[in-house]
Amino acid sequence: MNRTNPIGIFDSGIGGLTVVKSILRLMPNENIVYFGDTARVPYGSKSNETVIEYSLQAANFLLRKNIKLLVVACNTASAVALKDLKKFLTIPVIGMIEPGAKMAIQESRNGIVGVIGTRATISNRAYANELKKISPRTKVYERACPLFVPLAEEGWLDHKVTEMIAKEYLKELKEKNIDSLILGCTHYPILQDIIQKVIGKNVKLIDSGTPAAHLVEDYLNGRQLRNQSVHQGISEFYVSDVPAKFREIAERFLGRKIIHLHKVELEELTNE
Amino acid sequence: MNRTNPIGIFDSGIGGLTVVKSILRLMPNENIVYFGDTARVPYGSKSNETVIEYSLQAANFLLRKNIKLLVVACNTASAVALKDLKKFLTIPVIGMIEPGAKMAIQESRNGIVGVIGTRATISNRAYANELKKISPRTKVYERACPLFVPLAEEGWLDHKVTEMIAKEYLKELKEKNIDSLILGCTHYPILQDIIQKVIGKNVKLIDSGTPAAHLVEDYLNGRQLRNQSVHQGISEFYVSDVPAKFREIAERFLGRKIIHLHKVELEELTNE
Repeated sequence: MNRTNPIGIFDSGIGGLTVVKSILRLMPNENIVYFGDTARVPYGSKSNETVIEYSLQAANFLLRKNIKLLVVACNTASAVALKDLKKFLTIPVIGMIEPGAKMAIQESRNGIVGVIGTRATISNRAYANELKKISPRTKVYERACPLFVPLAEEGWLDHKVTEMIAKEYLKELKEKNIDSLILGCTHYPILQDIIQKVIGKNVKLIDSGTPAAHLVEDYLNGRQLRNQSVHQGISEFYVSDVPAKFREIAERFLGRKIIHLHKVELEELTNE
Repeated sequence: MNRTNPIGIFDSGIGGLTVVKSILRLMPNENIVYFGDTARVPYGSKSNETVIEYSLQAANFLLRKNIKLLVVACNTASAVALKDLKKFLTIPVIGMIEPGAKMAIQESRNGIVGVIGTRATISNRAYANELKKISPRTKVYERACPLFVPLAEEGWLDHKVTEMIAKEYLKELKEKNIDSLILGCTHYPILQDIIQKVIGKNVKLIDSGTPAAHLVEDYLNGRQLRNQSVHQGISEFYVSDVPAKFREIAERFLGRKIIHLHKVELEELTNE
């Protein structure tokens, strides 16, 4: 494996671009290949079996781009498919669950942690299991928030309705006296202002993207795989569907122009 | 073609079961084969190109079940892919747009019609074009309501938040003095109580499912293809993903037990 090979990142859609942003902030000279499965998004409401199938297809697509490490930016895919990905891939695979859970444990003083995510992430209890593994006495309270993704995509970031929905979803977590809250879906950081307002300013919000980027750096350093280039790396973006406004939304997410954007035909994913 | 061959119905997910219900109420002795593309749902936020590809795959799958007529129960697929489906298929193809538009024209007294639907349905202007074709002097006002589907799936049918969102979405249509409103998405009839309350009781809500079922009956009668059996027909259901709670939601939608439920592998759809 070569140090100049790209880091592969995949997500069910475009939410994973927030993870790309964290990685590029930390390691701007790394090359990136991103795959967003926009033709089949969302994963969070689908069965484990389907999420695993789609995740393996995404990984195989990125392997053909000679990636040196795979980041599973989608929390649902991390919760459901990480074990299978690690089994089939020989390169390192980093998901969102472990770094997010570690950071929550570090940040929590009272040992009471909240987790919000898609139905699939919450019903698989991936964060809860990881939190208990790291620190068995942690108290964990979880809540699926299925309307947060459509609200983020609708752009209702400071809308009264979004606040009311957040109040309903977070009511129980608030009553349980959590002091840190894992934003267990790459879309949720977009709504963090309202989430913070509703849950209270004393609760620390944990976005797995930042600790995941640090974990990627540690892995690459530990294996002598960090790119040594002094130039800014190249980022390439592949999506299985390019709906109208895609580029606009992606550029807003990433905060920079997207130059290399390609559509992947589904046949490329399903026929290996 | 044999009279006993089944009617094929497809939808992006399970919303189309409301159309199955209308058809079975009218023609209980017909055999039905339903395909719901639950592994790739929703269609309403995806590109035209992808919606056309998925629709042709669904149609080909149902053709292999020897269907005598195809009903496109998904409004997005009807709006985007009907022309292509009619081009490639030799059996009759019935979408939601034409019957819904016809019924709205019949029901409207002031000639001012509202249409709500997914982003794809509204941006393709399928209902507006059909309404103008039938009655050029009709005034048409349209609004995409992307949060209605997740709200219906969350089951928040009489929730204060749903009412607030409906008020925001329907505000402009209400000001335009519409007297009939096309529910241009198979999920929306589930929210009809709140929609009716918000838009006002003098506005007639048009659900394309019922007129589409009548159009199916006319087509079959006109081509001597109505099943003559005196027994209740058999309904078979195929889905590309079976998430937890699928059967429960589907049985609530349809108001009857689902006996023949099968999972279709994506390879069956993509490799023809």
